[in-house]
Amino acid sequence: MRKQWRLAARPEGIPDASHFDLTEVPIPALEPGKAVVKTLYLGVAPVMLRYMRNETDFESPLALGSVMPGRGVVQVIESDCDSLPVGAIVQARVGWQEYALIDTSDRPAPFLLPTDLPLSHGIGAVSLSGITALIGVREIGLVKATDRILVSGAAGGVGSHVAEIAKALDAQSVVGIAGGPEKCRRLTTEMGYDRVIDYKNDNVDAALDDAFPEGIDLYFDNVGGSLLDNVLGRLRRRARIAICGSISEYLVDLKDKHRFVNLQNLGRQDAKMEGFFVFDYEQAYPDCIKTLADWVRAGALNPVEDISEGIETMPQALADLYLGHNVGVRMVRVGAPDLPFS
Amino acid sequence: MRKQWRLAARPEGIPDASHFDLTEVPIPALEPGKAVVKTLYLGVAPVMLRYMRNETDFESPLALGSVMPGRGVVQVIESDCDSLPVGAIVQARVGWQEYALIDTSDRPAPFLLPTDLPLSHGIGAVSLSGITALIGVREIGLVKATDRILVSGAAGGVGSHVAEIAKALDAQSVVGIAGGPEKCRRLTTEMGYDRVIDYKNDNVDAALDDAFPEGIDLYFDNVGGSLLDNVLGRLRRRARIAICGSISEYLVDLKDKHRFVNLQNLGRQDAKMEGFFVFDYEQAYPDCIKTLADWVRAGALNPVEDISEGIETMPQALADLYLGHNVGVRMVRVGAPDLPFS
Repeated sequence: MRKQWRLAARPEGIPDASHFDLTEVPIPALEPGKAVVKTLYLGVAPVMLRYMRNETDFESPLALGSVMPGRGVVQVIESDCDSLPVGAIVQARVGWQEYALIDTSDRPAPFLLPTDLPLSHGIGAVSLSGITALIGVREIGLVKATDRILVSGAAGGVGSHVAEIAKALDAQSVVGIAGGPEKCRRLTTEMGYDRVIDYKNDNVDAALDDAFPEGIDLYFDNVGGSLLDNVLGRLRRRARIAICGSISEYLVDLKDKHRFVNLQNLGRQDAKMEGFFVFDYEQAYPDCIKTLADWVRAGALNPVEDISEGIETMPQALADLYLGHNVGVRMVRVGAPDLPFS
Repeated sequence: MRKQWRLAARPEGIPDASHFDLTEVPIPALEPGKAVVKTLYLGVAPVMLRYMRNETDFESPLALGSVMPGRGVVQVIESDCDSLPVGAIVQARVGWQEYALIDTSDRPAPFLLPTDLPLSHGIGAVSLSGITALIGVREIGLVKATDRILVSGAAGGVGSHVAEIAKALDAQSVVGIAGGPEKCRRLTTEMGYDRVIDYKNDNVDAALDDAFPEGIDLYFDNVGGSLLDNVLGRLRRRARIAICGSISEYLVDLKDKHRFVNLQNLGRQDAKMEGFFVFDYEQAYPDCIKTLADWVRAGALNPVEDISEGIETMPQALADLYLGHNVGVRMVRVGAPDLPFS
C-alpha cells in the first residue's frame, strides 16, 4: 500500500490539514513504457497554493480529490523505460505519495540526479530551487562583476542559494532581506550573504539607504508588494529585477494589493523587470545541474535544508512557506532507497 | 551670424516661448580636429523637457543661458577632421542653432547619413527615431512572427515607425493608440497599422477587449500611466513591454502620478518590462541605419514627417510634442545645403 495526500478543499488563506485528505491505495503495477518509483524526498513550493486555488493557466486544472501535485526525489524500483533504469535516482513529478507510476512525457521530464551528493539536494540545490536561483541571477539578472545585489525572501528555498551563486559568478556584494534574527544570522553564517536586513525589526528604508547609497543593480525578488515598490525607487541605471515570486501577494485580496508608485522609474533608469518560471528553461537543466553540483563539491555552494520526517508532515511543510517558518529548502523525507544506485 | 535658442527659464508645465531666448552670435571659426557645420534640420524629443528641468542624471546639467541641446541633420562646410569631410551630410548634436563647431568626441558620435534619401529622414526614419523603434521592437521587444502588438503614442515620432518595422520583422498584427480621428485615420492609411484605438473618443477597455481577446504579446509604450497599467492586466504569457517613453508622466506632479495595480501580473505571466534609451546602443547604429534605409528604399517603411519652416519655430515644435499636435516626426527645416554632398 502507499499513502497519498489528496486535495479536499480550496483554501482561502494559508492551507492547513483541513484542505487535504490522507488516503491509502495499492502500489501501482508497472505499465508499458513507464516506471514504478519509490518516493525518497518531497519538496514544497509557493506556487502550490495557486494550484490548490486553481489560479494557474499553465497547468491542468487541479480537481478536488486529486492527488496533490509536486516533485520529489525518487528511486526507480521497476521499469519498462530505458531512460529510467531500476535503481536510478531521479527528480520527477511524483505527487504527494509514497509510490507512483511515472513516465517521461511530463514537462519538465524526469531527470537523473548526481548520486555522490546528499539525495536531499535533489529537492533543492542541484534541482529546481538551485536552477531557479541560477537562472534568475545569470539569465534574467544578467549578473555582472560590479553588481550590488539585493535578495528578498533570502532565507527561503530559492533565496538561500542566491548569494553563493551570485558570488560564484563574481558579483561584488549581496544583501539579503529576511524576517527575524535567527534567519538573518544564518544568512551571513551559512548562506554567503554579506549583509542582512531584518524586515521585522529594522527600519528597512534606513537600512537600504545605508546598504545601497548609489542604488541597486540587481534585485532578486521573492516577495513582491511594497518592498518591490521601494526597490523600484532605488534602481541604478540599467538595473535588473528578476521576479522569482511574489509570496506577499498570494494571500492578499485584490482590493488590498499594493499600488505601485515607483514603476515609472524603471523607464527612467532604462532598467528591466522580468518574471520567470523555471519550467520554461528545461533545455538548460543538464548544464545548470552540472554547474550547481560542481559548486557544491567545491564548497562554493552550501545548501541549507529544512527537513521534516514522514509524508504525514506534508501539509505543515507547505503551510510553513506562507508562515515564514522555513530556513533554507523546506522538504519532507518520505522514505529510504531500497536498491543500490544505478 | 547665426541664430541660437538658449534656455531662459525652467518650465513647470509645457514649455513655451517664455522659456527660451533667441540670440545671434558670429559663425564659429574652425578649430583643430573639428568641423564647422550648417544646420539643415533640427529634431525635437520629449526628453528635452527633462534636460530643461535638469532632471536627468545621464547628461551634463543644462545651465540657464546655455544653447538648447538637440540633434540635427547638418552639412560640413569647413573641416579639420578626416571623418567629417566638407560636404558630408551628418547627424550630430548641434544644438538649436544655425551653425556650430562639432567634433567626434560626443557620445553618440556624429554619424554619416545616406544621401539618396530625403535629408529630413536623417531626423527620423534613418536616424534616432527609426533606430529607437527598431531597437524597441527587435532587441527589447524580441518580436516574434506570432506576436499581437500594441503601440501607444502610435502617431508620434517613434510610434509612427513601429508598425511598419514590426511588419518588416514578420509580426502578425499591430494595433495603434492615438488621440483624435485625424491621427487615427493616418495610422492605418499611412503608417501600416492594422487597427486603431482613439483614446479620446473610444471606450479603451472595450476596444482592447475586442482587439486582444487572448491578450497582448508585445506592448511598445510611449506614454506610461494608466494605459500601461491597463496593458499590464492583459499580458499573455512571456509578453514583453518595451518602455520607450512615458510622456503622460512628465507633466504630472508626484502626488498625481498613477498608482499601478496590475504590476504583479508581470511576474504571474513570466513577462518582461524593460526601459531603454537609444544612446546606449551606439554600436548598433550603422547596422540599424542600413536596415532602415533599405526598408525605405523598398517601400516597406514610409516615414511620416511634420515639418515647420525656420529656426524661429523650434519652441513651438517642442511644445507640440506635449500638446499632442504632431503627426509623425516633428522637425524644423533650418537651412538648405550650400555644397555638393561628399
